[in-house]
Amino acid sequence: MRRDTLGTLYGVGVGPGDPELITRKAARILAEVDRIFYPAETRGGTSFCQRIIAPLGVPEAKCQAIHLGMSRQRSADLHTYDTAVEAMVAELRQGKSVAWITQGDPLFYSTFIHLYERMRRRFPEVPIEIIPGVTSTSAAAAMGGIPVACLEEKVAILPAAYGLEGLAALLNDFATVYLLKVNSVFDQLLDTLRTLPPAVHAFYLERVGTAEARIVTDLESLRGQPLPYFSLVLLRHERHAAQASELQEAG
Amino acid sequence: MRRDTLGTLYGVGVGPGDPELITRKAARILAEVDRIFYPAETRGGTSFCQRIIAPLGVPEAKCQAIHLGMSRQRSADLHTYDTAVEAMVAELRQGKSVAWITQGDPLFYSTFIHLYERMRRRFPEVPIEIIPGVTSTSAAAAMGGIPVACLEEKVAILPAAYGLEGLAALLNDFATVYLLKVNSVFDQLLDTLRTLPPAVHAFYLERVGTAEARIVTDLESLRGQPLPYFSLVLLRHERHAAQASELQEAG
Repeated sequence: MRRDTLGTLYGVGVGPGDPELITRKAARILAEVDRIFYPAETRGGTSFCQRIIAPLGVPEAKCQAIHLGMSRQRSADLHTYDTAVEAMVAELRQGKSVAWITQGDPLFYSTFIHLYERMRRRFPEVPIEIIPGVTSTSAAAAMGGIPVACLEEKVAILPAAYGLEGLAALLNDFATVYLLKVNSVFDQLLDTLRTLPPAVHAFYLERVGTAEARIVTDLESLRGQPLPYFSLVLLRHERHAAQASELQEAG
Repeated sequence: MRRDTLGTLYGVGVGPGDPELITRKAARILAEVDRIFYPAETRGGTSFCQRIIAPLGVPEAKCQAIHLGMSRQRSADLHTYDTAVEAMVAELRQGKSVAWITQGDPLFYSTFIHLYERMRRRFPEVPIEIIPGVTSTSAAAAMGGIPVACLEEKVAILPAAYGLEGLAALLNDFATVYLLKVNSVFDQLLDTLRTLPPAVHAFYLERVGTAEARIVTDLESLRGQPLPYFSLVLLRHERHAAQASELQEAG
């Protein structure tokens, strides 16, 4: 295909859920592009991304939901990614600009990454611009009023299912550890938290950036309960605070 | 002081530098508040934060620069933080709303954290709301088109001066490692990078989100050069890609 007739693909982060946390740039690009694609959670159902951008007043006619498989069947997922990429390329070849909207940030635990990598591999001539967005990790810290890092402190972010084993060691080195998608391993996480030093403070946050957001500091009260997919735990190791009070107590 | 006459303090993240990466919420709050305080880099000099919000057209009269000491003299710094907190409290006590603007996100390697913690300790009755912002780490990934994490991958963020020793071990476990403020230890970092496996790709980015932003992939070309404070290195361990190609080569 000729590059001069190709539209640009924008990967647009729309933030964690609150429509006001969309950036001015994302809002402008969504107003300007010819077509907007977004992931639909269920066939024919509502879309979280669509709800985020609703207050922008983008015409329905230029939006199209794409059902991305979350089937755990890898081959079925790959097929839906290919279908999505081909649908966008059909528009781009007509010189139309296309936005793919994604919750949070497009390159941070987003399905956009799969589409992006497939697009680059199969259609390397397509110009792509990525608009960063506010992440759910930033929004969670803001909601809880929890400092994430200053000066020499380190931050780690990991899907909970892959990080519980080494958690104690990690918290020796990292002041803040985010555990994402805690819902699937929550009771196991509670058992791990009991083994951590008392200077490690734990905050559970779900659906951050939406009207249903909540923060829980007594994590044991959630044991055995069903938790939503959009849930995370922020662990903060208040080492400096602890050291300071130890000095005071000793003095 | 009586709580019902107290204004609210907003900690407002204005993103990495591009005025368009301000969120709609930050723009609204900066328009609505009575007073805006921002950090000035030098006495009487220009402010990076002020330049970011300039296109919003906020009246000069409601803005006030505060010189925060970056003196490396801890006691002098603490004094300037106290002065800033007291200046804001004087407004809040008159029932005025106050915003402190901060580059990036207010709770992520920001001087706002020091002000916030002092405010909470000295004036716990002041209502505080924090507006998260796009971080320079997200903006750097977007500029480079570099996926940060998907699925089971882990992310670490550390000030370079405190992380070079354990870097090789860290990259065994973390798919992406951000090294912040690399300018002070850059040549030492180059020596460390030489010892890492070839599957680790390094990207140097400076002044992300400004008109002077640049990305450099041949990091050796920067050896011995003066680098700005707003510089970071993103290390990406393409283990999965490498494993896939190994399988192909073996097959």
